[in-house]
Amino acid sequence: MRDTEVQVCFRPSDREAYVLPGTRLVEAAAEAGLVLDVPCGGEGICGRCRVRVVAGAAEPTPVERERLSPEEIAAGWRLACQSVVAGPTDVVIPTAAPQILVPEQRGRESLLQSPVRKLYVELPPPSRGDDLPDVLRLERALGAGSLAIDLSLLRQIAVRLREAEFRGTAVLVDGRLLDFEPGHTETDAFAVALDLGTTTLVAELLDLAAGAAWAVEARLNPQIRFGDDVLSRILHVRQNADGLGELRATITSAVDEMIGELCRKAGAPRERVYAIAVSGNTTMQQLFCGVDPSPLGEVPFTPTLGRGVECRAEKLDIHIHPRGDAYVMPVIGGFVGGDTVAGILATGLQECEKPTLLVDIGTNGEIVLLADGRLSAASTAAGPAFEGARISCGMRGCAGAIEKVLVADGRLQINVIGDARPAGLCGSGLIDVAAELLRHGLLTPQGRLLPKDELPRDAPADLLDRVVLREGKTAFRLAAEGETADGRPIELTQRDLRELQLATGAIRAGIAILLRRAGLTPGDLDRVLVAGGFGNFIRRSNAQRIGLLPCRIERHRIRFVGNTSLAGARLAVLSRQSREKAEELARAAEHIDLSCDADFSREFAEAMMFPEE
Amino acid sequence: MRDTEVQVCFRPSDREAYVLPGTRLVEAAAEAGLVLDVPCGGEGICGRCRVRVVAGAAEPTPVERERLSPEEIAAGWRLACQSVVAGPTDVVIPTAAPQILVPEQRGRESLLQSPVRKLYVELPPPSRGDDLPDVLRLERALGAGSLAIDLSLLRQIAVRLREAEFRGTAVLVDGRLLDFEPGHTETDAFAVALDLGTTTLVAELLDLAAGAAWAVEARLNPQIRFGDDVLSRILHVRQNADGLGELRATITSAVDEMIGELCRKAGAPRERVYAIAVSGNTTMQQLFCGVDPSPLGEVPFTPTLGRGVECRAEKLDIHIHPRGDAYVMPVIGGFVGGDTVAGILATGLQECEKPTLLVDIGTNGEIVLLADGRLSAASTAAGPAFEGARISCGMRGCAGAIEKVLVADGRLQINVIGDARPAGLCGSGLIDVAAELLRHGLLTPQGRLLPKDELPRDAPADLLDRVVLREGKTAFRLAAEGETADGRPIELTQRDLRELQLATGAIRAGIAILLRRAGLTPGDLDRVLVAGGFGNFIRRSNAQRIGLLPCRIERHRIRFVGNTSLAGARLAVLSRQSREKAEELARAAEHIDLSCDADFSREFAEAMMFPEE
Repeated sequence: MRDTEVQVCFRPSDREAYVLPGTRLVEAAAEAGLVLDVPCGGEGICGRCRVRVVAGAAEPTPVERERLSPEEIAAGWRLACQSVVAGPTDVVIPTAAPQILVPEQRGRESLLQSPVRKLYVELPPPSRGDDLPDVLRLERALGAGSLAIDLSLLRQIAVRLREAEFRGTAVLVDGRLLDFEPGHTETDAFAVALDLGTTTLVAELLDLAAGAAWAVEARLNPQIRFGDDVLSRILHVRQNADGLGELRATITSAVDEMIGELCRKAGAPRERVYAIAVSGNTTMQQLFCGVDPSPLGEVPFTPTLGRGVECRAEKLDIHIHPRGDAYVMPVIGGFVGGDTVAGILATGLQECEKPTLLVDIGTNGEIVLLADGRLSAASTAAGPAFEGARISCGMRGCAGAIEKVLVADGRLQINVIGDARPAGLCGSGLIDVAAELLRHGLLTPQGRLLPKDELPRDAPADLLDRVVLREGKTAFRLAAEGETADGRPIELTQRDLRELQLATGAIRAGIAILLRRAGLTPGDLDRVLVAGGFGNFIRRSNAQRIGLLPCRIERHRIRFVGNTSLAGARLAVLSRQSREKAEELARAAEHIDLSCDADFSREFAEAMMFPEE
Repeated sequence: MRDTEVQVCFRPSDREAYVLPGTRLVEAAAEAGLVLDVPCGGEGICGRCRVRVVAGAAEPTPVERERLSPEEIAAGWRLACQSVVAGPTDVVIPTAAPQILVPEQRGRESLLQSPVRKLYVELPPPSRGDDLPDVLRLERALGAGSLAIDLSLLRQIAVRLREAEFRGTAVLVDGRLLDFEPGHTETDAFAVALDLGTTTLVAELLDLAAGAAWAVEARLNPQIRFGDDVLSRILHVRQNADGLGELRATITSAVDEMIGELCRKAGAPRERVYAIAVSGNTTMQQLFCGVDPSPLGEVPFTPTLGRGVECRAEKLDIHIHPRGDAYVMPVIGGFVGGDTVAGILATGLQECEKPTLLVDIGTNGEIVLLADGRLSAASTAAGPAFEGARISCGMRGCAGAIEKVLVADGRLQINVIGDARPAGLCGSGLIDVAAELLRHGLLTPQGRLLPKDELPRDAPADLLDRVVLREGKTAFRLAAEGETADGRPIELTQRDLRELQLATGAIRAGIAILLRRAGLTPGDLDRVLVAGGFGNFIRRSNAQRIGLLPCRIERHRIRFVGNTSLAGARLAVLSRQSREKAEELARAAEHIDLSCDADFSREFAEAMMFPEE
């Protein structure tokens, strides 16, 4: 069942992935930890995922022929969402084009006015008759008005100016003089965007001079050892005297290491990173800031932070430039945090003219509805099932995970990530298998896995053979003993399906309530934007089949918008206007506390059922 | 020759002074370290120095009868600039009336919008359906917009709010939330104004709720052990690896102690002091901020600081509220620093319609001319002669100092500060004795103390008798061996007079150059404002006689405006607008570097000569 995987190398990050031939480049990149933004949902429309295949380029698809010129095609340019891997491949991801999420054709570039500016200046040294104070001399040379200067820099500036012989590069963040560097360093200017997920941390180094992303670094959130969801981490803080300190140190040291790694890759000294923007859910942001999340752990689940936090990165124990700027996104309310604000910001949701839904699928599911120009947002505790946790054979979407399950030609086919035997099932595979079982009648809409004697006669024999008894209960076998990494079979149990129902139901109920409050039905939605690193790998039809995404909506209206939390942080670190917009959006969006909604319990109970076909 | 001194007690500070009967209350207060502002120059016009004499009140003067009602007079109210000490006296200095300098009759109160506001609020605790984040809940209760909140407070605010059961007092500085204090503490709000003199430090505690000064604390600048003028301190920094650290620690620990003392007197906890404003000359301000003054010690004498410095007081090692605000005044240029800006601000100099001169007499003399709406400012190194240093028998204006010298009824009369035998001569006494010697022909305009055989016959015998030979040189005896504290005679030498000529000449030349550049003569001046703690004690006619102040100007045009450095700091700590005004004034004023002026040497040489009568 497993084909031979081939190597795909990505530059300039020098990452590699091993994938089956036929895998799209965008998926191969994702396996290598490089999330390319495919705002159009991989339809080949937006052209944002252009890459240059320098070795092993596949034949261009009709869509590519339409979108790219013959010269471009000859030079190896392809669309990563279209081009498939044919054999060993070398791919260059262009850094010149910033991987900024542009979901619609709008010119979002106008937003990108980086608050960090560097300006090389040569000052006339003080002389008789020109004894202007150092600081005013610098202001004069910069042609700027009054500059705010931190005391720590005021204490060094005279020596800095004189050692540099009054020639050097001023680093300005808004109206603040961050530093004066000897020599011409205008092109050395970096910033970091950080997505603080409950499960996954993603950091990106942005080259401000080039306007491009330099490198991405992703790793598991090490706070997981204190609990796999935010409530268990809040509990840890409440029950341990220095719980907050522990959780904060765990996350900040991980982030600090990631920044070090990004700088190493880019050959950028840490002190040339002048800003960082951070996006995460309410709890993660408070833990990162060292703000006790205890009140989030009891009724009525109150956050402390509301507006975005601006401070020196140093105060958060993040080591960039010693006076570098940190920004943590504003919070909407309850558990609906900065990641949701970032998502709205990155997708331009509030500017859509027709009803649009944004769903961020993660350990916390966040749902935002735009209708009649109003934003409403809710959070549902989907739990970590989509991240492979609480599933008997579950695992995260890394090497060895069954990430795709498909019934074709009457046989169950699986795709495993990386050059490995299957070791478990990740979220996208879980959705796939549930959808196929529903389609072939092995699973009832109520979520019951039918026992051998109740199975439909017309189902493919390969599927029927996989229905087994495990400890007296019906289970579905994905891989037999001999096929797996550890020699144990990979089987989906009734209990696993219950976890999936709970996770799916939570999100589905949230969507239903938001729609109902706005007087809408799923059919009224012009578009459904699916966010989350995981979102990109879901098969839309399968997500609809199990009810995770609304059924009564045409498939082309569902778009995958990638990691919008990271994309929003990127906008916030690149643009002052984006920060202002984020603050505005956070206050404009109405927080819907689902647990306060009279209909929630009933809605949730109903949403537990898979849709009838 | 010494009359019997009597005790004068001042409340509420419980300070006391011993003075000769006939001393005006304003002078007695000054001896006790309480500088009352007498913006009208002690003419009894402005009424700002009203005090209540509760025991030992003198008969009211005609001026007082005109200015005060019979009821007020009966209740003991007097004008401190008019009323003289008749015998032991008890005086209450009203705290309700802020001792803010109001030089003209303008309504300066409109300026006084303290940036510190306290507001008691009761918040509805979070509940189901009202889960607004803590920070936004507080904003809502305050009816304020977005509040900037320091990370250190964000980390505490949830606990603060809950411990206070959501009732307490918000402390706001501009749009920044400084703290949330449990309970109702609106009336506990203090600030400190600080005058950083080269020789003397004066700090004042301001009760922001009452709008009054609570207490004043003055002490010698302990940096004096590193040198009595700024250049010697700069030299210390240049020559010692940690010279700057030493000088900074010396001054900040003294200031910190003074604040502690002020708080002790007022019964105010340090953490209820929310702001401090600091005014001093360029060097003193840089030393206080920890900014290396070395470039001020060599041509072209360049300051580092230009604009005012705003930071947390903590960063300056000043312990007030942990997030308390510090402001250090802006600098005009060269040695013309924040004290001069403070002086312009406090006197409203820039608003005068006719040519006006502001002279701040201290170790550094600062001169500001307003003419045709333009401010020009210069600094002259008068040296510490006026503070009693570099004078053989000199001393500061404290107990034992001869502060007043007068020839009356053919006899030399001296007044000594405090209940003590004379120990030396302070600045005002030095001016007095030189003026009297000039008047009686014992001293030539060239500064030559005439020897016994050249003395004018018509001079009073008591004066002639005091001309002595000391080590072969002519000297003038102020007190004989048997009369002094240490049994040594107090004599003025030719060399002392040379020092006085240098100090006077420096200021006089500065005045002359500023006037000449504006195309004015002294006669064009509508007003001369004399500032400096010391200024208040100078006899105008004597200062004019020796040429320190322009001769060709009517006496009533000369006004003593007191310690305007302190008064300006007070305005800056009380009002955001005043800070903005100060920044504006500092940039509007033109710095005249006297050492660059082609005429300065000649002017200085000429100014060394005392005026011909």
